[in-house]
Amino acid sequence: MKRAMFQLDQKDMPNHWYNILPDLPEPLPAVLHPGTGNPVTPDDLAPLFPMGLIMQEFSPEQYIEIPEEVQEIYRIWRPTNLHRAYALEKALDTPAKIFYKYEGTSPAGSHKPNTAVAQAYYNKKEGTKRIATETGAGQWGSSMAFGCALFGIECKVYMVKISYQQKPYRRLMMNTWGATCVASPSTDTKAGRDMLAKDPDCPGSLGLAISEAVEDAAGRDDTHYSLGSVLNHVLLHQTIIGQEAMMQMEMADAYPDIIVGCVGGGSNFAGMYLPFVKDKINGKKPDLRIINVEPESCPTLTKGLYAYDFGDVAGMTPLLKMFTLGHDFMPPPVHAGGLRYHGMAPIICHLHKLGLVEARAVPQMATFEAGIQFARTEGIISAPETNHAIRATIDEALKCRESGESKTILLAHSGHGHFDLAAYDAYLSGKLVDYAYPEEKVKEALANLPKVANQ
Amino acid sequence: MKRAMFQLDQKDMPNHWYNILPDLPEPLPAVLHPGTGNPVTPDDLAPLFPMGLIMQEFSPEQYIEIPEEVQEIYRIWRPTNLHRAYALEKALDTPAKIFYKYEGTSPAGSHKPNTAVAQAYYNKKEGTKRIATETGAGQWGSSMAFGCALFGIECKVYMVKISYQQKPYRRLMMNTWGATCVASPSTDTKAGRDMLAKDPDCPGSLGLAISEAVEDAAGRDDTHYSLGSVLNHVLLHQTIIGQEAMMQMEMADAYPDIIVGCVGGGSNFAGMYLPFVKDKINGKKPDLRIINVEPESCPTLTKGLYAYDFGDVAGMTPLLKMFTLGHDFMPPPVHAGGLRYHGMAPIICHLHKLGLVEARAVPQMATFEAGIQFARTEGIISAPETNHAIRATIDEALKCRESGESKTILLAHSGHGHFDLAAYDAYLSGKLVDYAYPEEKVKEALANLPKVANQ
Repeated sequence: MKRAMFQLDQKDMPNHWYNILPDLPEPLPAVLHPGTGNPVTPDDLAPLFPMGLIMQEFSPEQYIEIPEEVQEIYRIWRPTNLHRAYALEKALDTPAKIFYKYEGTSPAGSHKPNTAVAQAYYNKKEGTKRIATETGAGQWGSSMAFGCALFGIECKVYMVKISYQQKPYRRLMMNTWGATCVASPSTDTKAGRDMLAKDPDCPGSLGLAISEAVEDAAGRDDTHYSLGSVLNHVLLHQTIIGQEAMMQMEMADAYPDIIVGCVGGGSNFAGMYLPFVKDKINGKKPDLRIINVEPESCPTLTKGLYAYDFGDVAGMTPLLKMFTLGHDFMPPPVHAGGLRYHGMAPIICHLHKLGLVEARAVPQMATFEAGIQFARTEGIISAPETNHAIRATIDEALKCRESGESKTILLAHSGHGHFDLAAYDAYLSGKLVDYAYPEEKVKEALANLPKVANQ
Repeated sequence: MKRAMFQLDQKDMPNHWYNILPDLPEPLPAVLHPGTGNPVTPDDLAPLFPMGLIMQEFSPEQYIEIPEEVQEIYRIWRPTNLHRAYALEKALDTPAKIFYKYEGTSPAGSHKPNTAVAQAYYNKKEGTKRIATETGAGQWGSSMAFGCALFGIECKVYMVKISYQQKPYRRLMMNTWGATCVASPSTDTKAGRDMLAKDPDCPGSLGLAISEAVEDAAGRDDTHYSLGSVLNHVLLHQTIIGQEAMMQMEMADAYPDIIVGCVGGGSNFAGMYLPFVKDKINGKKPDLRIINVEPESCPTLTKGLYAYDFGDVAGMTPLLKMFTLGHDFMPPPVHAGGLRYHGMAPIICHLHKLGLVEARAVPQMATFEAGIQFARTEGIISAPETNHAIRATIDEALKCRESGESKTILLAHSGHGHFDLAAYDAYLSGKLVDYAYPEEKVKEALANLPKVANQ
């Protein structure tokens, strides 16, 4: 048994992001204006985003250069390593070869800085003095605080109140990088004040926090808004993961038969697999399987409807064609905070609709069981989100044990669980539970889709 | 301005640890038996440690092979990267060149696993089924839990009660890796029960936790004891840091003028500088400066007495010749838990006595100021221990700004501060204070040195 790490030399780090838009077999459905139902224009988005990012959202270029200033900050932790999981393979007694690409060595502990740094850069370049954003579990807020610190931009984060209270360390990370973080609903915006008037004890939701951040940014000339997943430009920035992984798999003299990752908004996993999907579309690797893993209690791709919906609860965002559980659906409180989102990146949804990728839902308890096995063999304590991907990886490896096939599995490991140990404690002390799929709540939420875009 | 990371290829990872004992200009003073005052023999130590580690403690070999099984686990995160801190240099407007070797990417988040894995290996090889150890702030306990998990050894950690309560996440890490962790004083040992009978609310101390772990190990045939710093074999295992750094400095076409690190027991920093001290002894780099940085409130090297003392409060360990503040000295509650130790590794003390290394004490507030500057330029949130080294690094770089000299500074960065954010919060919210040097308490403690070894 031999562990190995496939290291990419920093001078070989990709200097372009990969944009799948021009390579799609069918074009991505348009983003629609929530008032008119017509396709949005770059100008519609200008109050919220710098033009550099807006142009990426619609770009027809296959490769987009990573600015030198962004590459320079990437060099704090990139390229990240690809690992061969020999110890896990041995524990599973499987002929499968398991590789994992580990994003947990970034300063914020996950893949999120890949886009936070890029977004901070384009904002800085166009003179943005201040960025407003939201965060659920805190991964995104802390990454944006990191990105803003390094470019000297003020940063205000609206953090879902229940997380703000449960995960004080994530907030303190933001403060350490100089950002301001308030619990949402806050008294700083009309959306927050309205909610507090209705319900002073409101625990908050990601949708509401988005509404607060959007209102903040729209109301101030010096401020832009920033989103950590879902949008095309966010997925674009994450493709550095997949491009590095492709070179590293080559170093390992291997090519994946199966790629596995967890999806909330989908940016980490899409960042891994979009460069590989290209090979599938081109016919270079037509039998490649790509498995998007989501929680059984928030099964967007496996049980959602493919329709136009808002990105937030309050209905302030443009309309995106995506698999959705309904924008006012409130998922059960699973510990994978990053996977509790009603929608999914439109690019992923489109690929799923085209049959190029597949989806699987897993129950919470089984994900922690997998995470513990990974920690005690590979040594890394993973985020609860990542544990979903580890579950599906182990399941595929066990199928190989049954069939005797020596498949190559590539796991997108999105980050560590240093701020999620209370969830491990709940699991180890028998306090964790599985949540049934909330079918009735989804039905109600899906009855409330925006009519302007869905007949 | 260009950031850079100097990556060592995994195939070039050192496969030997460097042992300074045969290269010392004068031999290290003997370790003495606490009862007789005579030098201890390997057999005296056999109830506590496996013979593989005991032989390393006294070894005359300059290089000791790293077993393949240990190298394999090192390959989860080693070699660690050396970084050029361009952004910090720029912020300081200094002509100094600052490099830092970052150990925070290990699964436990610090340098500690370098020896935890080795200690678990030698124990496993000699049939140890169970290891008992203590931990203060939790860095060591979680690293030993990690090492034991990967070698299938049961692990019991006695954690200082005040830390057990203040840092639940460190304990949960140990649980996730399968270790048992109890608050010390515990009811599991006589030492613990005696203390609880005297004072049921006793907050614990590292010295007492050592007494509990030693009693546990001495009383069971299947159990050995393990220590995370101070001893020669622990420093030996950490020399992988310095050997890698030496190769990486060569890649950067540089050699340090000054090496800076923090010292508690001293294993991390000695691991960095022992291979460089060799060059100083040999005359290859006679003007190399090596600065051991400690807290002003626990100034072992700068204010302690060079004498024989116990390693623990209860006086159960062999006697070590070291700078000491007295084994029953209780340092003020600074947030750098790893630097609150009355003694220091005998090898470091010996080198200090010989004038080969220097020492400096810094106040707590100034260390957090430095840590914040590092986080907002280099992006990494550092452990409070490491912030002591960052403080001295910045001070040396500022001296270069004054003098115009372009010195090369190498910082030993021991780990991240993900579990120490409450301390950052205390600093940012104005609740942190500096502690005066507790001169009277040290005087009292030094009056209580063991008489058998000190005339």
